[in-house]
Amino acid sequence: MGTVGHRFENIRIVLCRPTHPGNIGASARAMKTMGLSRLYLVSPKHFPHPEATARASGAEDVLEKSVVCETLDDALIGAQLMVAVTARPRDLSHEVHDPRGAARILLDEAVRSEVALVFGTEMSGLTTEEIGKCQVISTIPANPAYSSLNLASAVQVMAYELKMTLPEEMNPSGKALDLATFEEIEHFYQHLEKTLVKIGFLDPEEPKRLMQRMRRLFARSRLEKTEVNILRGILRDLSKYSPDTGNEIV
Amino acid sequence: MGTVGHRFENIRIVLCRPTHPGNIGASARAMKTMGLSRLYLVSPKHFPHPEATARASGAEDVLEKSVVCETLDDALIGAQLMVAVTARPRDLSHEVHDPRGAARILLDEAVRSEVALVFGTEMSGLTTEEIGKCQVISTIPANPAYSSLNLASAVQVMAYELKMTLPEEMNPSGKALDLATFEEIEHFYQHLEKTLVKIGFLDPEEPKRLMQRMRRLFARSRLEKTEVNILRGILRDLSKYSPDTGNEIV
Repeated sequence: MGTVGHRFENIRIVLCRPTHPGNIGASARAMKTMGLSRLYLVSPKHFPHPEATARASGAEDVLEKSVVCETLDDALIGAQLMVAVTARPRDLSHEVHDPRGAARILLDEAVRSEVALVFGTEMSGLTTEEIGKCQVISTIPANPAYSSLNLASAVQVMAYELKMTLPEEMNPSGKALDLATFEEIEHFYQHLEKTLVKIGFLDPEEPKRLMQRMRRLFARSRLEKTEVNILRGILRDLSKYSPDTGNEIV
Repeated sequence: MGTVGHRFENIRIVLCRPTHPGNIGASARAMKTMGLSRLYLVSPKHFPHPEATARASGAEDVLEKSVVCETLDDALIGAQLMVAVTARPRDLSHEVHDPRGAARILLDEAVRSEVALVFGTEMSGLTTEEIGKCQVISTIPANPAYSSLNLASAVQVMAYELKMTLPEEMNPSGKALDLATFEEIEHFYQHLEKTLVKIGFLDPEEPKRLMQRMRRLFARSRLEKTEVNILRGILRDLSKYSPDTGNEIV
């Protein structure tokens, strides 16, 4: 992991006055799925608690290493950039960013210093005083008619954006496919055309646009080598069922 | 909402064989926070259930409108693009996209047709057969050592990306700030400089770079009109405490 791991080690997730222990556990799980591990709890109503452990579901280590503080100030000691997560921007002159923008700011800073992502209590969020201790606000875009994200869901979205923003993070679509080469695909089309003619499905005197349509269809699927081999195997087997054996194909 | 609302109305969220009713409720809540409303449940173990209702917490309407089906096939009737959400790409030749890429594909298609986002059962995810009914796979990037997102958390991340990808969705940092004008800021700097000289903090014979540093500091904060007024108010009051009254300032 190298630099990446180092950056994530500099990020603390701070939950202010969480009231439901289940949300603490679910937040720990959300953090761990994205590779975050430093949880700070400011005056949790119930912690430790069996419900927190149950909902952590494999992320109990995050709960065990969590730091319980009396005040938000205690939880922020040593941090140099603090980002407050709120449901909607208040009438304050803070910089406001969506989670993607906030993730970039946090990771840029986490290269050299400690940063904190601060979440409020379930029902009412962060107080103006708590927001005042942060330099940046992040707002998760939401349905104006119902913007109440569950606390652990908010942690999940922010942690996901941090993970997505990590420079080394590659798009999973980068999965190496072993695509067929141009020649392999052309041989397949020739094989297909011959077979279609042979079985009487394609009239070479009046081909219309059949092969063009076939090409369009297979082009969209971006054929892999093994798939071309399978298709050509099918064509070979199809040829065995020629009319002279007495079997109809179509 | 116009086109946007229309696109979201064409998106169904399909949960295959959910075992915990709490996750159904939490998924409904996650959907509603992002403006999605069409929930399909394939053979839920327990539904309806008080735990589902409790965790929906304001999204009971999504549960009430949900469609319960016996098979995934039933849930997909009428859909034209099906995206399977899996923890890790299988050895299948599906197109694989991260949630951002999948959101783009889904929204492009939802302009004209019905689309479905399909989630598997809690412990084991989607079966190969279920994935086989979808054209595209989406994988949420996760910690390789612990990739087990809670079902509702996975729904939240995908719904969030759909919301973020909506073309009309503006970055919330677009909040209109009432910034001070150039002249207002220059008058403030003049006022500040005079005050600093007056109180003896700034030696006009040897100013060094003090004002330059002040400018840099305030430039970073992008001052608003009201803030300039407050700062100038402070300067006015500071001037009252001149040395000839016998009070030291610094």
